[in-house]
Amino acid sequence: MADPTPNLVITGKYLLTQDSRQTIIADGGIAIADDRIIETGNGLELLKKYPGADTIVEEHGLIMPGLVNTHTHAAMACFRGMADDLPLMQWLQEYIFPVEARLTPGIVYHSTLLSICEMIKSGTTSFCDMYLFAADVARAADEAGIRAWIGEVLYDFPSPSYGELKNGFVYTEKLFARYSGHDLINITLDPHSVYTCSPDLLKRLGRMAAEKNGLYVIHLAENREEVDTCMERYGCSPVMHLEHLGLLSQRVVADHCVMVTDDEIKLMADRGVKVSHCQESNMKLASGTAPVVKMLDAGITVGIGTDGSASNNDVDMFGEMNTVAKIHKVIRMDPTAMDAATTLKAATIGGAAVLNADREIGSLEAGKKADLIVLDLNQPHLTPIYNPVSHLVYAARGSDVVHSVINGRIVMQDRCLTILDETAILAKMSVIGEQIRNMRQE
Amino acid sequence: MADPTPNLVITGKYLLTQDSRQTIIADGGIAIADDRIIETGNGLELLKKYPGADTIVEEHGLIMPGLVNTHTHAAMACFRGMADDLPLMQWLQEYIFPVEARLTPGIVYHSTLLSICEMIKSGTTSFCDMYLFAADVARAADEAGIRAWIGEVLYDFPSPSYGELKNGFVYTEKLFARYSGHDLINITLDPHSVYTCSPDLLKRLGRMAAEKNGLYVIHLAENREEVDTCMERYGCSPVMHLEHLGLLSQRVVADHCVMVTDDEIKLMADRGVKVSHCQESNMKLASGTAPVVKMLDAGITVGIGTDGSASNNDVDMFGEMNTVAKIHKVIRMDPTAMDAATTLKAATIGGAAVLNADREIGSLEAGKKADLIVLDLNQPHLTPIYNPVSHLVYAARGSDVVHSVINGRIVMQDRCLTILDETAILAKMSVIGEQIRNMRQE
Repeated sequence: MADPTPNLVITGKYLLTQDSRQTIIADGGIAIADDRIIETGNGLELLKKYPGADTIVEEHGLIMPGLVNTHTHAAMACFRGMADDLPLMQWLQEYIFPVEARLTPGIVYHSTLLSICEMIKSGTTSFCDMYLFAADVARAADEAGIRAWIGEVLYDFPSPSYGELKNGFVYTEKLFARYSGHDLINITLDPHSVYTCSPDLLKRLGRMAAEKNGLYVIHLAENREEVDTCMERYGCSPVMHLEHLGLLSQRVVADHCVMVTDDEIKLMADRGVKVSHCQESNMKLASGTAPVVKMLDAGITVGIGTDGSASNNDVDMFGEMNTVAKIHKVIRMDPTAMDAATTLKAATIGGAAVLNADREIGSLEAGKKADLIVLDLNQPHLTPIYNPVSHLVYAARGSDVVHSVINGRIVMQDRCLTILDETAILAKMSVIGEQIRNMRQE
Repeated sequence: MADPTPNLVITGKYLLTQDSRQTIIADGGIAIADDRIIETGNGLELLKKYPGADTIVEEHGLIMPGLVNTHTHAAMACFRGMADDLPLMQWLQEYIFPVEARLTPGIVYHSTLLSICEMIKSGTTSFCDMYLFAADVARAADEAGIRAWIGEVLYDFPSPSYGELKNGFVYTEKLFARYSGHDLINITLDPHSVYTCSPDLLKRLGRMAAEKNGLYVIHLAENREEVDTCMERYGCSPVMHLEHLGLLSQRVVADHCVMVTDDEIKLMADRGVKVSHCQESNMKLASGTAPVVKMLDAGITVGIGTDGSASNNDVDMFGEMNTVAKIHKVIRMDPTAMDAATTLKAATIGGAAVLNADREIGSLEAGKKADLIVLDLNQPHLTPIYNPVSHLVYAARGSDVVHSVINGRIVMQDRCLTILDETAILAKMSVIGEQIRNMRQE
């Protein structure tokens, strides 16, 4: 069957493909038919070749794959800036837990919409989310037209969302049933962590992940306290605890992995475990710095995540790239560590691989899904241009993204969201912010 | 004499004064007459009280002091992204030095204009610059209407700018003569560093600083190599070398100070030395992390600088604040370190104090110069609002700044520069970028 005729052609100053050779096409363009990329090449030639297509012509534009945020709690946008600069336990126990206990599906839905607005407006086209009321997270993502991996977080104690643990499995089964075969929404299995989930729970979710062919998303080795708790309870580290339970596999998306030894890195590489690196959150909560350079050297697939907006306090992947590229240099005292290309890879094709989706997204190549963004390079902080990759990692900001396409659909044009009603979402979230402030004062 | 009648009133959702009590006025406003702040208070009341004034009414606006960037090499914007991820010596010797040797006054002038565009568009209203061809840096700053402290960098070897060292003193004298009594431009004495300046040169500039009542701006204890060189040459550390020369004083703006001991911190505090903290540059060049928390505890006045765009790669002080607030938490493994208020202070009134200018700028108080910016808070990444200070440090970006006023003059309104011609500057810098690329290839 012949390829369908492209209905959208986008051209710019550069097309940054993020293919295996990291090809950058000057004066490049991309032709899209429905949800798929048909062709990449010279922009003018594509415009001539497909005269019937809609066009976005951006003289100073850089076209690149949409960014993949591999660890979020999107709905925590409602807690942004509610409490900072506190010891972890005080932050959780006095601020986060009391309001999380009173969360509603409505708050989660609207807060997720807010976070998705922010993600699209800062270049993210896919995210992997773990939170409460995941059905409402998925509803928001579905309405927004964004690509997402979404799981209901499970742990031993009762949840504000589903109540008793047994209901959590039912909740998760329903999510799988609801989104089976969905173009954009993928359901995941989300044990919270080794210190909040019993070995039985961890194993049961492992079996479900295998049955459903889903990702197994877990906070792992985030900080010293987690390691100490695990050592005390199980006589081994969090990574080794999962290994002993037979749970380390290619399905695992391990969030954080700050506290991992060289031997554990080797083991994780052998098992095909993927890592979501959440540096800004790890800095803000003073957790430490994951040994990402060692992980990459060992062959582990690493993506970049922002974590929730309560511990970041944004979901801007451009800011996160900037931090990631710089922090490993100073931690290792080596200015060549975590170069711009490596960092950009982690935020695009690497992140896609973390989600086992690199055959579909993460680079701009014929046959892949059309998830892409366009940045306006004609700005003081991106001038002059010697190396576009350097600019993306060390100088660009989320606000430089002018257009966004997800699954072939334009979700932002000239910085205006086309599907979501940003004004209404901001107004609603101001009201919810008031509600949450009152919850704390009651 | 009665206060002059305000000719400009600006109102917003919040007026963040950065006064000594860190007062935040909800629904606040500010009244300005010519270059001075006349009054702060309730926005509506000020609008009523001064009906003849021009007005900027920003329903979702946050009005705050303009940011003070205490260490720049503005003209290095022309090298942005030319070379990254390299060992320091290779970066300097193969990339920076060869093109710096061929710099022209014109390149410096236009590159400085570019950097000033970026500064204004990201909320900076004052900067302290050290570079070659400082007369052209000052000419650009003067034309742009930005507040600046500017010095010609001096060192033992011939300069691409003034040639023989003796001419450097003449060059500096001329700068002082040209800008004596200028409202916005202040000339500084800028020995490059202890490893490039002889004790005689360091002392001579110290005497000139005293004579001229100017700041003494120097790169100090930036990295291990500098300390080792100084130890080898003079048998002591960079800080102690300046102490032995009798040069540590309240006039000193010490850039970087990554490698300082506890005893040296105490000494610097005793001598009234100010510090410009340049964390992102220190990360990118793998220099280390200055012990800023200890410095603040010891009573040292600390400001924040971006350094040049070749080692950052931007001059966005919002990004810099975000990094500063987070890095010290993870380095000290203490989530309470360098809280948002402390960080914001360093970028505003603290930075002003580094430049011995905190009686004139750095906070919004009646009688001070009107240097202020207005941010648009009605955006996904700044919603909801529990604590404006948290948002400024942990979530805001330079692109959130919509208006900027320097010395009472509107230099940006609705993100359009009113004095500088941004389009022409970007076009000119693209051409200069080509020239520089060719220089390297010749």
